[in-house]
Amino acid sequence: MKYIKLNFIFGALLFASTGSYAQQEVIDTAAFSRIRKAELSSSQIPQIAHYLTDVSGPRLTNSPGYARAASWAVATMKKWGMTNAATEPWGTFGKQWEVQDFSMMMRAPYNAQIRAYPNPWSPGSTGLLQGEVMIITSAQAIDTVYLNSHATGFKGKFVLVTGEAADYKKDFEPSAERLADTALANLKDTYMVSRSMIDMYTTKYLKIFKTADRILKNAGALAFISAGRSNVNGTVFVQGRYGYKLTDPETVPQVTMASEDGQKIKRLIQSGQKVELAMSFTDKTSTEDTNGYNVVGEIPGTDPKLKSQLVMLGGHLDSWQAATGATDNAAGCIVMLEAVRLLDSLGLKPKRTIRIALWSGEEQGLLGSFGYVKSHFRDGVKFTVKPEQAKVSAYFNLDNGTGKIRGIFAQNNEKMKPIFEQWLKPFNDLGATTVTMANTGSTDHLAFDWAGIPGFQFVQDPIDYETRTHHSNMDDYDHLMIDDLKQAAIIVASFVYQASIRPEMLPRKPLVNETFVFDGF
Amino acid sequence: MKYIKLNFIFGALLFASTGSYAQQEVIDTAAFSRIRKAELSSSQIPQIAHYLTDVSGPRLTNSPGYARAASWAVATMKKWGMTNAATEPWGTFGKQWEVQDFSMMMRAPYNAQIRAYPNPWSPGSTGLLQGEVMIITSAQAIDTVYLNSHATGFKGKFVLVTGEAADYKKDFEPSAERLADTALANLKDTYMVSRSMIDMYTTKYLKIFKTADRILKNAGALAFISAGRSNVNGTVFVQGRYGYKLTDPETVPQVTMASEDGQKIKRLIQSGQKVELAMSFTDKTSTEDTNGYNVVGEIPGTDPKLKSQLVMLGGHLDSWQAATGATDNAAGCIVMLEAVRLLDSLGLKPKRTIRIALWSGEEQGLLGSFGYVKSHFRDGVKFTVKPEQAKVSAYFNLDNGTGKIRGIFAQNNEKMKPIFEQWLKPFNDLGATTVTMANTGSTDHLAFDWAGIPGFQFVQDPIDYETRTHHSNMDDYDHLMIDDLKQAAIIVASFVYQASIRPEMLPRKPLVNETFVFDGF
Repeated sequence: MKYIKLNFIFGALLFASTGSYAQQEVIDTAAFSRIRKAELSSSQIPQIAHYLTDVSGPRLTNSPGYARAASWAVATMKKWGMTNAATEPWGTFGKQWEVQDFSMMMRAPYNAQIRAYPNPWSPGSTGLLQGEVMIITSAQAIDTVYLNSHATGFKGKFVLVTGEAADYKKDFEPSAERLADTALANLKDTYMVSRSMIDMYTTKYLKIFKTADRILKNAGALAFISAGRSNVNGTVFVQGRYGYKLTDPETVPQVTMASEDGQKIKRLIQSGQKVELAMSFTDKTSTEDTNGYNVVGEIPGTDPKLKSQLVMLGGHLDSWQAATGATDNAAGCIVMLEAVRLLDSLGLKPKRTIRIALWSGEEQGLLGSFGYVKSHFRDGVKFTVKPEQAKVSAYFNLDNGTGKIRGIFAQNNEKMKPIFEQWLKPFNDLGATTVTMANTGSTDHLAFDWAGIPGFQFVQDPIDYETRTHHSNMDDYDHLMIDDLKQAAIIVASFVYQASIRPEMLPRKPLVNETFVFDGF
Repeated sequence: MKYIKLNFIFGALLFASTGSYAQQEVIDTAAFSRIRKAELSSSQIPQIAHYLTDVSGPRLTNSPGYARAASWAVATMKKWGMTNAATEPWGTFGKQWEVQDFSMMMRAPYNAQIRAYPNPWSPGSTGLLQGEVMIITSAQAIDTVYLNSHATGFKGKFVLVTGEAADYKKDFEPSAERLADTALANLKDTYMVSRSMIDMYTTKYLKIFKTADRILKNAGALAFISAGRSNVNGTVFVQGRYGYKLTDPETVPQVTMASEDGQKIKRLIQSGQKVELAMSFTDKTSTEDTNGYNVVGEIPGTDPKLKSQLVMLGGHLDSWQAATGATDNAAGCIVMLEAVRLLDSLGLKPKRTIRIALWSGEEQGLLGSFGYVKSHFRDGVKFTVKPEQAKVSAYFNLDNGTGKIRGIFAQNNEKMKPIFEQWLKPFNDLGATTVTMANTGSTDHLAFDWAGIPGFQFVQDPIDYETRTHHSNMDDYDHLMIDDLKQAAIIVASFVYQASIRPEMLPRKPLVNETFVFDGF
């Protein structure tokens, strides 16, 4: 017993000693409590979610749906009494595109509905297209020698890429999950895309896709169709490869169909049946305004010395377009908007100015956030830091689906770990416990990281983001978990407020001399 | 140790004693082994599945898809060398109907694809229908007083029934499962529909539906749309209520849409948006041949004294029509066809004649099997037993999806339990272990049960039959589990063969003097 007790005391001393390295954070727990109580009693999350998803529709960058969502967000922030609410151009994006009409039927060997969606920025068809289906493998689809030597065969055909045979697995495991304690304790770098991967894609595959598309176009193919990922109970994942830039080459219509339909057609052709499809597809494309726009708004700081400084928060407002982008990433925008609404409606007095930014072009390579950061914080050509860069304490991002917050990625910023651990403590009972040094990528805090500003993404429960909703036709309002979003709004509002009243700005990592700036596919 | 050993011996004596009540079955284990080996080395299940699903298409009773499947099955049985392969009319069914063309788009507040399917036997639309959506609740949809008093409001509208608010739950539990040992040990009566439930439906609800439909038709509604069951990741469950009989009243077009789309439209209307849909829907309906047809075929018995007796097996070939009815119930037909193919190709010599029957009209109330049984075994008016009834040893049915066989329902026939337990023993290693006295209903063995002939349905792993594939747009080939069907074919072929060589016919339950015969909705 004695030994144990001595050991315990020794441990407690060690703990105190470790703790002493970190400055004690003075946390406004009263404000945190007010935020939590307000959110749990009078949340506006269902309404915000409804307007960003149902009412706006798909929010592909520069599309009318994006414009509806952006206008609503600006008007709503003004209504709430926020300042400087506006759209802000971040640079050249490209076409304004949306689907006007789409349907696909199998016509032979019999009539059957096909579950299919146009790929973003695909040109529509001129009238009803009808013709035979020709199958190629995914290897052949990027083999330009093969495509050139078979080009005459593509004329008047729907060219369908089915990939390998479907290896359909039933959901004997849940398709939705929360992070277990062990998973939280072992978080690794996640969603990181290396520069070499991007290089490989842009310098190799994108060129191959464009060449392949040109061969099909010149050959007179009716359309290029991909059969979606299998094992997903009819869920169809639809995104674009390129096509939004005015300089992008014209292609035949590009479509993605459900795996089950694609595999059925492949089996029919393999057993000697002639398969015909009919497709009706009208797009609406405009080049009237090729600028990309973010949405910004502010709650002014109240401390005369600190109000010129900023605490920023955001998420990307753009989505893909087979559904209404509820979890990717209306969810993040809903939470961020609710967080500023809470702060504003509670009359809390942030010392620094709080600025929300909802990005566009995220799905094409974090274009809106990088455009914004290049305009405000670091030159995109000379890579010199701009004066405003010194005034931003931190940027908080949310973009990993509808799951509640379980912690935060410190993004390899050692000084932030003890600070965030103290900030998170009041939310441990809500399941938010973990500060990891690991990095996470593939979303907009990376733009701030690049500019030398502390940029953070929260750790979220995955739910069914990877299995069902991310970039899919399932990504609608009903696939949001409203209670999870409320929890996230409570934590984000509290963190942002705490950052606004903290005596010092948050500590920074050294600026990395990384001169690479990606400008989209 | 001694106590334990004594106990063990006492247990063994008890077991032997229980066993002695049952006649020892002489099982042809050599034949069972040949069947198993042949199926595992040269199964034709993928090919049979492909032709019944992909090539035939949806197999709604009397539809062209059903006719394709029936023709293929007859031709294939002839090719295999079976005798008396033919379609056989079982009585009057009604219309021959199929979808020629269908698409639905939301037109306001913006353009968006809607996941929707026509209900079976729905009339099509004349050209493109476009109009506003009006929401009613599921209670209002069967409240004829409400409908009459609001009739003028339905003119030119798409009337959408959304039911209660979607209570969307993520799949934190698997959507597919196998039966655990405890579940097998505790099987209860399942899928039983009582006469009072059928009475209630036919005398009350069906009349209400018809009245409600007439009100909508007279009011000039554009279509009647149901939003499907929620919590199913976009899966749409589509079936018909009535409409196949020549005497059925004409309705407006009947459509089912995905829950997510229905709930979105409801939220839009509730928040003050005007929602418009456009629908294009062409059906092809014929009354040229209103007979319903089953498919039959035989392997002749080889024992001069027994070959006039029958062992029957079957499943229903008809399906609903939003997919190709792979698990409901191509699966059962695939297994039964494979079973007779195995017996035939192995040159096994059944003593009794083996007759396969693939039914139609099952989904409208077991019409094909009851029609057959009334024609062959028991008069449907006088309820007298016909001579052929005495010659059928048993009927084996499979119709609970794609899961492998875990046992068999003895259907309250006490004498069958020890017999089936002996027959199943060689398949215990394949997971088939359980003979339950429980009843199961809702499928075609009930017709034989009604006629006093032992009719059995196997116990199957549920997989995702109830959650995803049963009557849904997911019910396609890729949702079959081919290895499970192989296991089922091995067991069915063995059981049918064993029944054919058994010295006596299988023991019967007393004929129940139940004079109720259901004749469809």
